[in-house]
Amino acid sequence: MVAEILAVGTELLMGQIVNTNAQYLTKRLNDVGVNVYYHSVVGDNPIRLKECLRLALSRSDVVITTGGLGPTKDDITKETVAEIMGMKLVRDEETFRNIRCFFERVNRKMLVNNIKQADIPEGCTIIPNKNGTAPGCLIEKDGKTIIMFPGPPKEMIPMFEETIYPYLEQKTGQIIGSRMLKVFGIGESEMEMKIMDLVEAQSNPTIAPYVNMGEIVIRVTARSKNYDEAMKMIDPVIERIKERLGSDLYAYSGETLEETVVQLLIGKGISISTAESCTGGMLASKLVNVPGVSDVFTNGFITYSNQSKIDVLGVNPDTIKTYGAVSKETAVEMVKGLVKKTSSRAGISITGIAGPDGGTPEKPVGSVYVAVMLDGEIDTMALKLNGDRERVRHMACLNAMNMLRKKILN
Amino acid sequence: MVAEILAVGTELLMGQIVNTNAQYLTKRLNDVGVNVYYHSVVGDNPIRLKECLRLALSRSDVVITTGGLGPTKDDITKETVAEIMGMKLVRDEETFRNIRCFFERVNRKMLVNNIKQADIPEGCTIIPNKNGTAPGCLIEKDGKTIIMFPGPPKEMIPMFEETIYPYLEQKTGQIIGSRMLKVFGIGESEMEMKIMDLVEAQSNPTIAPYVNMGEIVIRVTARSKNYDEAMKMIDPVIERIKERLGSDLYAYSGETLEETVVQLLIGKGISISTAESCTGGMLASKLVNVPGVSDVFTNGFITYSNQSKIDVLGVNPDTIKTYGAVSKETAVEMVKGLVKKTSSRAGISITGIAGPDGGTPEKPVGSVYVAVMLDGEIDTMALKLNGDRERVRHMACLNAMNMLRKKILN
Repeated sequence: MVAEILAVGTELLMGQIVNTNAQYLTKRLNDVGVNVYYHSVVGDNPIRLKECLRLALSRSDVVITTGGLGPTKDDITKETVAEIMGMKLVRDEETFRNIRCFFERVNRKMLVNNIKQADIPEGCTIIPNKNGTAPGCLIEKDGKTIIMFPGPPKEMIPMFEETIYPYLEQKTGQIIGSRMLKVFGIGESEMEMKIMDLVEAQSNPTIAPYVNMGEIVIRVTARSKNYDEAMKMIDPVIERIKERLGSDLYAYSGETLEETVVQLLIGKGISISTAESCTGGMLASKLVNVPGVSDVFTNGFITYSNQSKIDVLGVNPDTIKTYGAVSKETAVEMVKGLVKKTSSRAGISITGIAGPDGGTPEKPVGSVYVAVMLDGEIDTMALKLNGDRERVRHMACLNAMNMLRKKILN
Repeated sequence: MVAEILAVGTELLMGQIVNTNAQYLTKRLNDVGVNVYYHSVVGDNPIRLKECLRLALSRSDVVITTGGLGPTKDDITKETVAEIMGMKLVRDEETFRNIRCFFERVNRKMLVNNIKQADIPEGCTIIPNKNGTAPGCLIEKDGKTIIMFPGPPKEMIPMFEETIYPYLEQKTGQIIGSRMLKVFGIGESEMEMKIMDLVEAQSNPTIAPYVNMGEIVIRVTARSKNYDEAMKMIDPVIERIKERLGSDLYAYSGETLEETVVQLLIGKGISISTAESCTGGMLASKLVNVPGVSDVFTNGFITYSNQSKIDVLGVNPDTIKTYGAVSKETAVEMVKGLVKKTSSRAGISITGIAGPDGGTPEKPVGSVYVAVMLDGEIDTMALKLNGDRERVRHMACLNAMNMLRKKILN
């Protein structure tokens, strides 16, 4: 089965957004045994969209469109597909009610524009959209399948996973089990060298290492006739990878580093608090994004100025004067003051220079000090990070969380 | 002049990488007055590549390929383009020397494979590549232009900027100026209804509203013979949009809401502090990501548990008992305690239910209360947000910042 992804939207042809949907869908289609031979992007132009749809239908079995299902008059995907497939658009009452409820829920007025989102090609299967007003459609006609999704990934991805992936699984008869491992603390090349022979020796399950949004990921995928069997085939492969990578491997099911850390804290009953300077709440925010964190996290402090480090955390002004606010010594006093204040078993402090200004020859932009305290014992780490302000702050948080994780494990 | 971008590479059709090249090139082509009507992606398959190239040449004036110029036998772009255009591949001695030098410079052995990278279509213009071994090619033949780039953005981007952008500038004689406006507080449909007549009446400058990552954006773009003149043409259009959208328009040069708010605070010399429950530091983290924030932000508190709201911010336990930790009353006491503690002129408190658990019939997941204090005066807002935990927290922060922004402006 050959699929093609057709993204519709002038914003893509203005370079305003990048077509991440195509990557996501392609990856998942490959997972379920569907080959993707083409991606196309076309603007909100009925003539060119029609031409692209006809071409796609002529060369692919499954055509997946993203975008153009919105309420505005530029949104023409549904109308154009219906025309090409010789289908009528009809009002779907349930969809209409859902859209009305959506607006009630978010306390906004439903506009006359939104009504057209309830019109769908007659006889198609509706793909529910829990995160937006535009439902998707699945059309099977004349031996071809057309699947239409809205453009925003936050809407498209759950719709694909909940409705279309199972549909394709049934169609291809290929059941795939896969696990996403994640690694922190070694570089991509080092990880690859450590497991390259395993990667090359495997065909089912396959081992695919890659970097996604700065994270080192290893996807292990097995094909079998049923899901449980596929998953069982994966387990011994994971064991072998684990032997090679040790505790640098932190996730076995795609969980984030913060999820891993929070689960570890909850599992061991270790309470935690945070004291942040350059990260400015980002560390706490990452932890707080994990449901259930309230079992172990009660509060945190953002001490951005020198004075607040002194006032709130009790850092000695002389320490800041002698060593600087960005120093191992200040980080240590921050975490000591923090734990004294919150009585938590674990504490993390971060102080650094996120840039773009504030760097010096000895402490350039990207210099970050982390102190981790666990049951009275303090470890510190000096980091030299690169990238822009946001990346420095993000990497500081990841390194700090990983440091705590390893400290708990050891 | 109409261009089309054709990315060549099976890795794109396996979902291993995302096609950021297409976005980059599209943006820059628009800047120089070249319209992009299509993007395509095809694998390293000679038959399908040929078919895609023929189609692209039939419907576009300029075809830009990325990828497939590497040394392996999968790299077939140059060979296929030469075949279609009826051109011979010939060894270019200077390119050959450059490739040899490149390997000497990076201390790696030149492989026999790399020699084929010195073969180029006879009569084409070479696009030098300082960051890799594969040169690009510019072919002008039969009224069509074909431009071939290697795939890695680190190679492609400088090649485009140094050689092709000036070439296109000369060809189109068009200079583009553009401004990105941003809107918060009204929905996409409402914004569109308010300015639709302006959008439709304009051709130069154009007005293009769209949604990017949940943000409502309006791009105003003017074409002229020089940049200053283009930018001057934009100003009156922005004025007209501003009349319609009022203070819901918060950015005139693409800046984020947090950048707008921090600049406003700095400009007015208003200090700020934050007290966060469900957002858990996300609000402070957003503010802290703006360089220069230290002028107005000294510290913040993350009071996730009820007890920490009482201990750190002095919230009355009876208030929490009577109204709940997620209530207008608690938000008000949080911001009062915060401002008392930090002596800042402005304070923001957020308390809410981010989910997935913790909702009740009266206060479902997504219920968030924000209190904003400015010079002793307190405003509150009750939000009903939807989406997952991260989105609820993100939208809570945006709404809180926007509330402060409007309070300062009024």
